[in-house]
Amino acid sequence: MSENNNAVLIGTKPVMNYVLACITFFHGGAKEVRIKARGRSISRAIDVAEVVRRRFLPDVKVKSIGIGTDQITSTEEGNQLTNVSTIEITLER
Amino acid sequence: MSENNNAVLIGTKPVMNYVLACITFFHGGAKEVRIKARGRSISRAIDVAEVVRRRFLPDVKVKSIGIGTDQITSTEEGNQLTNVSTIEITLER
Repeated sequence: MSENNNAVLIGTKPVMNYVLACITFFHGGAKEVRIKARGRSISRAIDVAEVVRRRFLPDVKVKSIGIGTDQITSTEEGNQLTNVSTIEITLER
Repeated sequence: MSENNNAVLIGTKPVMNYVLACITFFHGGAKEVRIKARGRSISRAIDVAEVVRRRFLPDVKVKSIGIGTDQITSTEEGNQLTNVSTIEITLER
C-alpha cells in the first residue's frame, strides 16, 4: 500500500467513527481520502465508503479499489506466517 | 448487480469451496468470473479472489471491483429496512 496522507485505517470501532474521519479530511480540503483495511475489517471499510458517499457527501466518488495480500506473523498460531487480505478504497470529490 | 452467469456467491462456507467454484468456471472456458458478496462475507470474497490468482491461476487478473448498498428487510429488527454493503469482484484471464 502507498503513503499514509489522508488515509483512514479501519479497525474495530463503530463505522461512524471512520465516516467522521473521512468527512474531516474532505472538509479540510482533501481531494482524495484512502480507506484501508485488512481481514475482517474489510466489510466495515466498504460500509464506511458507502455511508460517506450516500449519506453525507454525494459529490464523492469511488476513484479506485485495490485488493491485496499482506503476510503477517500470527502469534496465535505459534509465530507462523499467515496471509491476510487487504483492501484500499480511494474516494475523491 | 448484473446477470448471474459465471457468478460465485460467497456465503459462510470455507474459502476453498468458493475458490474451487471459480477454478471450475475458468477450467470450463470462462473468460470472466464474478465473485459477489455482501455484509460480513465481503472479506471472504477478497480472500477467494486472492487465493485464486495467487495460488492457483497466476494468469488471472482482477478486472474490476464494484461496491454498493442493498436494502434488505431485516427480520431480526422487526422487518425494518436496513442497508447492507455489497461487493462484486470480476476476475478475468
